[in-house]
Amino acid sequence: MRIGDTHYRSIRVDEKSGVVQVIDQRKLPFEFELMDLLSLDDACFAISDMVVRGAPLIGVTAAFGLYLAGLNSNVVHWRDELKEAAEMLIATRPTAVNLKYAVDLGLAEANSAGSREVMIDRLFHFAMALAEDEVNRSRMIGEHGLELIRECYEKKGDTVNILTHCNAGWLACVDYGTATAPIYEAHEQGIPVHVWVDETRPRNQGARLTAYELGEHGVAHSVIVDNAGGHLMQEGKVDMLIVGSDRTTRNGDVANKIGTYLKALAARDNKIPFYVALPTSSIDMNLLDGKEIEIENRGPEEVSHIQGWDEQQMKASSLRVLPLSSDVVNPGFDVTPSRLVTALITEKGVCPATEEAIRGLIEG
Amino acid sequence: MRIGDTHYRSIRVDEKSGVVQVIDQRKLPFEFELMDLLSLDDACFAISDMVVRGAPLIGVTAAFGLYLAGLNSNVVHWRDELKEAAEMLIATRPTAVNLKYAVDLGLAEANSAGSREVMIDRLFHFAMALAEDEVNRSRMIGEHGLELIRECYEKKGDTVNILTHCNAGWLACVDYGTATAPIYEAHEQGIPVHVWVDETRPRNQGARLTAYELGEHGVAHSVIVDNAGGHLMQEGKVDMLIVGSDRTTRNGDVANKIGTYLKALAARDNKIPFYVALPTSSIDMNLLDGKEIEIENRGPEEVSHIQGWDEQQMKASSLRVLPLSSDVVNPGFDVTPSRLVTALITEKGVCPATEEAIRGLIEG
Repeated sequence: MRIGDTHYRSIRVDEKSGVVQVIDQRKLPFEFELMDLLSLDDACFAISDMVVRGAPLIGVTAAFGLYLAGLNSNVVHWRDELKEAAEMLIATRPTAVNLKYAVDLGLAEANSAGSREVMIDRLFHFAMALAEDEVNRSRMIGEHGLELIRECYEKKGDTVNILTHCNAGWLACVDYGTATAPIYEAHEQGIPVHVWVDETRPRNQGARLTAYELGEHGVAHSVIVDNAGGHLMQEGKVDMLIVGSDRTTRNGDVANKIGTYLKALAARDNKIPFYVALPTSSIDMNLLDGKEIEIENRGPEEVSHIQGWDEQQMKASSLRVLPLSSDVVNPGFDVTPSRLVTALITEKGVCPATEEAIRGLIEG
Repeated sequence: MRIGDTHYRSIRVDEKSGVVQVIDQRKLPFEFELMDLLSLDDACFAISDMVVRGAPLIGVTAAFGLYLAGLNSNVVHWRDELKEAAEMLIATRPTAVNLKYAVDLGLAEANSAGSREVMIDRLFHFAMALAEDEVNRSRMIGEHGLELIRECYEKKGDTVNILTHCNAGWLACVDYGTATAPIYEAHEQGIPVHVWVDETRPRNQGARLTAYELGEHGVAHSVIVDNAGGHLMQEGKVDMLIVGSDRTTRNGDVANKIGTYLKALAARDNKIPFYVALPTSSIDMNLLDGKEIEIENRGPEEVSHIQGWDEQQMKASSLRVLPLSSDVVNPGFDVTPSRLVTALITEKGVCPATEEAIRGLIEG
C-alpha cells in the first residue's frame, strides 16, 4: 500500500542492495523509518521489540531471520547454527503460532539442502514465497470482501461506513491486510468508503496504525474512542463492521483484540452486519469453541501508561494516566461468540460462522 | 469521603477562615490542591475551567459564587451587581441545567431581602442548604442501592464485583456520589466490594477520578480499559453494574457518558443487573424518550491528545496519540434504552425504568 507517493510492503528486500528491510512500527504514526535486518540478531530484535507485529508479518520476518542466519553461517557448522537460530526465533514471541510454523518449515527446507550455498538459496526463496503467499491470501480476502461492500453500496447509493477495531491492516500483514483488504479493494474500485477507526486501548493500534495506513493510502476515515462505536451504530452511521481475528474455533467463535465482543453486541442490537476477515490458517479446528481459548492477561503498564508524541519536545514519550496505588487488570483479547458473527471473509470465500460451513470452505 | 486520613467534601467552607474552598480536580489524581474561592470571578473560573465538574457540584459552586458576589457587592448597587453575577455564572457552562436552576433560585432569595446584610446572609445559607441537599440526596441513593448490593452479597457469599463507567462519584457531587454512593455505603457496612473502573476515554474520568476517590477512601478497585468490561462479564467476574446518568427521559432511557450503552448490552447478554443511580431531579419528564436527547459532539483534541503525568519531569503533560492528518469524531454521551436498564436507584427509592414506575416514584 502507499505511504506518501511510494508503494511499500511491511517487509521487503531492497532491489539494489539486497538488504531485508522492515518498517519500524514502534515509531508510527509519528516517524517513518525503515530498519535494515542484516543478521539473525536483527530479526530477533525486530520481532521481540515489536518493530514488526501482526501474525503474518512476524512469520515472514522469522523466515527472513532464518535466511540471514544461513547467510552469515559458518561454512562447516551451518547446520548446528541454523538449529540454534530456529530456537532463538521461536523464543522471541512464544505464543505466535505461525512464527513457529514458518521457522519449522524453513528449517526443514534448509536441512534438505546438500550444501551451504543451496541452503542459503532455498531459505531466501522460502522467505520470499512465504511473503508472496501472505500477499495473495490478503488479496483474495479483499476480493471476496469487496462483494459485500459493493452490495451495500449498490443498495445504499452513498458512501459505505465501515467500523474496524485494532489493526488488521497491511502493516500487520505484508500487504493489503485482512480486515482492511476489502476496504482497500473497494477504494481502488472507486466505491466511496469511510472507515470508523476504533482507537483500541490499551495499545492504540487503531489510532496509531490503522489511522496511519488508511490516511497514507488516501482512504477517508475518522478516529473514535472505543466507547463511541455503539452510539454511532444507534445513529445509523455504521453500515458494516469488519474486524480481524487472532484465532477462530471450529464452531466460528472469534478471538480478537479486547473490545471486539462489545462492538459485535452493538452491531447485533442495531441489525448491522458484523464480518470477520481472516486467513483460513488462523482457524483452529482442534478447538471446539471459544471457551477453549485461553485469554492472555498482559502487563499493567499498557493500561497505566500511554505512548504518544510530545509536540513541544518533538519526540515520542509516555505518560502515566492512573493513580499510583490503583490496581490494573488487562486482558488482551476477548471472544465474540459465533451467534454474533454475520459471516467470515476468508481467502477461500465468504461463509457463515458455523462448523459445517467452515468445514465446507476448508475442505472444499 | 476520605482523602488520606481526612474527610473532605468537594466544596466546603473552611471553619476557621470562612473561606469557600474546592478541590482542584484538573490536577487529580497526581496532585491534591485546594483552591480558595474569594470572589465571583474565582467561582466562574472554577466552573468554566473545570476545576470543579459534575452537575451537582457545579450547581453548588454557582450558589457560592452568587454569595461571593453579594459579599463583595457595592453597598448601593448590589441588586444590579447580583443580576450581572447571575448572568456570568449561567454563561460559564451553558448546557448545565441545574447550574441555571441554582442561580435563579439564589437570585430570587437575594432579591427578596430588604437589606444588603440580609441578602448576604440569605445567599450564604442558600448555598449551604443546597450543598446539604445534595449530600442528603446522595446518601439516600446510597442507602437504597445498598440493599441491592447486600442481596447480591448474601446470595453469593463472596466479594461483590461492581463495574462502573466514568465518574459519578463524590467528586462530581458534594459527598458520596451517585453511582458510588451504594458502593461507599456497602464498604462502610463491611460488605466486601471490588470495583471495576472503566478508564472512560476520552477524558479518562474513570482512571483519573473514580480510581482516585475509591483508592483514597480505601475501596478495592481495578482500572480496566473501556474495551475490557464485556470480557470480564463473560468470565463471570462482574456481579452488577452501577452507572450514573446525565439525563433520564420519562420512559427510562438514560443518557450518560459515551460507552455506557456498550456496557449495558454486555450486561444484558450475560444476564447481569445494570443499575443507574441518579437524583430524581435529573429525570426530564418533558422528554418522551432518548431520541429527543441531543447528543453533544465535543472537540477533537479530547481524542487526539491525552493528559497524564510525565514521570521523568514530574509534571502534568499532554501527548498526541493520532496521526496529524486523521479526522476525529467525538460524541460525548450515548443513550442506553430503558429495555437494558434493570432498575433506577434514586433518593426516593429503587424502581424499574418505565414511565409508570417513574411517575409513581416522583409523585408518590
